[in-house]
Amino acid sequence: MHTLTVDLGDRSYPIHIGQGLLGKPSLLSPHLGGRQVLVVSNETVAPLYLEPVLGMLGDYLVTTVILPDGEQYKNLETLNKIYTALLENRLNRGCTLIALGGGVVGDITGFAAASYQRGVAFLQIPTTLLAQVDSSVGGKTGVNHPLGKNMIGAFHQPRCVLIDTNTLDTLDDRQLAAGLAEVIKYGLINDADFFAWLEQNIDALKARDKQALAQAIQRSCSIKAEIVAADERESGRRALLNLGHTFGHAIETGTGYGNWLHGEAVAAGMVMAADLSARHGWLPQSDVERAAALLRRAGLPVAPPAEMHEQQFLDLMAVDKKAVDSGLRLILLKAIGEAVVTAEYQPALLSETLNAAA
Amino acid sequence: MHTLTVDLGDRSYPIHIGQGLLGKPSLLSPHLGGRQVLVVSNETVAPLYLEPVLGMLGDYLVTTVILPDGEQYKNLETLNKIYTALLENRLNRGCTLIALGGGVVGDITGFAAASYQRGVAFLQIPTTLLAQVDSSVGGKTGVNHPLGKNMIGAFHQPRCVLIDTNTLDTLDDRQLAAGLAEVIKYGLINDADFFAWLEQNIDALKARDKQALAQAIQRSCSIKAEIVAADERESGRRALLNLGHTFGHAIETGTGYGNWLHGEAVAAGMVMAADLSARHGWLPQSDVERAAALLRRAGLPVAPPAEMHEQQFLDLMAVDKKAVDSGLRLILLKAIGEAVVTAEYQPALLSETLNAAA
Repeated sequence: MHTLTVDLGDRSYPIHIGQGLLGKPSLLSPHLGGRQVLVVSNETVAPLYLEPVLGMLGDYLVTTVILPDGEQYKNLETLNKIYTALLENRLNRGCTLIALGGGVVGDITGFAAASYQRGVAFLQIPTTLLAQVDSSVGGKTGVNHPLGKNMIGAFHQPRCVLIDTNTLDTLDDRQLAAGLAEVIKYGLINDADFFAWLEQNIDALKARDKQALAQAIQRSCSIKAEIVAADERESGRRALLNLGHTFGHAIETGTGYGNWLHGEAVAAGMVMAADLSARHGWLPQSDVERAAALLRRAGLPVAPPAEMHEQQFLDLMAVDKKAVDSGLRLILLKAIGEAVVTAEYQPALLSETLNAAA
Repeated sequence: MHTLTVDLGDRSYPIHIGQGLLGKPSLLSPHLGGRQVLVVSNETVAPLYLEPVLGMLGDYLVTTVILPDGEQYKNLETLNKIYTALLENRLNRGCTLIALGGGVVGDITGFAAASYQRGVAFLQIPTTLLAQVDSSVGGKTGVNHPLGKNMIGAFHQPRCVLIDTNTLDTLDDRQLAAGLAEVIKYGLINDADFFAWLEQNIDALKARDKQALAQAIQRSCSIKAEIVAADERESGRRALLNLGHTFGHAIETGTGYGNWLHGEAVAAGMVMAADLSARHGWLPQSDVERAAALLRRAGLPVAPPAEMHEQQFLDLMAVDKKAVDSGLRLILLKAIGEAVVTAEYQPALLSETLNAAA
């Protein structure tokens, strides 16, 4: 087992990464405050991993909520189901919520924990690669609104993130690829060596080589933990983690939540960001192709859906969280391994990027 | 004008109290971040005070949302109307929300601000006595769930509280009385001298004597500001501010939100808390009568609704925020001017209190 720490003073917490961790109750118990626990999972994950998790919670009063599976259910209505379960079972302020599943379960459970009785404890047990390398770490929680993704939410850090890499055995190929998009993102924004390592190891990762996956997860979590510790509330550097996300959120919202997986939309969005960077002369065209090639090998889309037009992108991007008073800021690339947040791009070139794929 | 400060480090903020403050834009402008502002009000308050508030915001891009009036609308559905207005008008992370109205508008707007794009700025312009002396100060925000009051929410401090005492001119008598319940609460929990002052001045307050009201508001806000600064997240002493609220929330939920005003339910709840304290011999019976007499003179109920039974109270109280693992904690009185948080009461005596009124 490998343990990283997200260093946030009195809200610091461990990320445990290893095989078979779902069989180790001693990893959970230090982080459970009271005796009441609510486990939130979904219809896909619960049949596979709810039982081992309940087995770790023998001494607690446990309630479970099983949500439908998919981004289209990450909304206020589903959130309210969690509140109702909490209240029907009289869970009090000392309770702990456990998110068992992918990014949707983690985000919605985290926001339920952030807002139930003005804030209770929660733990993350991510079971998808995407949740393991990205969404379970860093305390971003929330739900979608029909007019914008992740527009409703809170910063609320978990008490612990427990990553059992065995859960990846049951992940379907499309979900695995979606997770690889976020892994590749860390290489692109922060770590050219890691990007090169991914180019060497992408086939092993696709083939679910345990050691390669463990290495990719550790490196990804380590980069994320370091960035979150430096800028928890995204007033600066943390925004770099949104590479591809402004374009990607527009794709997810524009095509209807649940049709494109988040990682797929981010993959296409990262290529668009690289393309726009190259149009400014900031990034060699060969690096755009290098990024696209790796994403393609991972099994990911590298262009937005043909039916989306420039104006739809602009409409959806303007309500994105990265939009600010002084103009829409984007995360662009100066090199593979070096991203910047900037509003200093030319609108005409953005227009070219948005039209290039259509 | 009188200015108090809620001392919370880099989240400290002023409470301005005075006549005619709605005509002074310079009090708002230092607290508005970007150019985008959303003003949230309700059908009762907007016709009276929206225009002067918009007059203070001439240089900003202002959107307004008018909610229906009443506690029964303090729910996720109404909250979602605010999110929709924010997104339809493309308000970004640099925007500021302004709550113009009573406690319901303040609580729901505050929670919208806490959760929109994971947190934006907000200001409070409370127009009811209850909101001016209590709910606008301290950062408790949220909405109700059918199974429990204020069960969904966040701690999110405003940037400024602007109390124009002229707005009380248009407050109906029942709302004024409801506000006096919270004023009397401060005397009961913290300040025997203030309680005695209220006994001397209750008729002047009921008659809307401007000077008496200003004094009551200042003293109430001052006590609240001091307690909030010492214990923002209610891990200790802040719980004393909930005197009468565990019983009161049960009355509000049990009778259906909006039938009893919050202050009315708290008034009856405070008498129940005093009664339970007296049954333990902690408070002389004469002080129970003193508290009830002052509340009665203020025009408030001093007993719960006859149709509520012991079991209904216990059911509703057990999901109250003040319920903890080790048993339901209550705020009880050791004297007029001295409240305590305790689980050390006898269930048999609680049962007597719950049955006494029925």
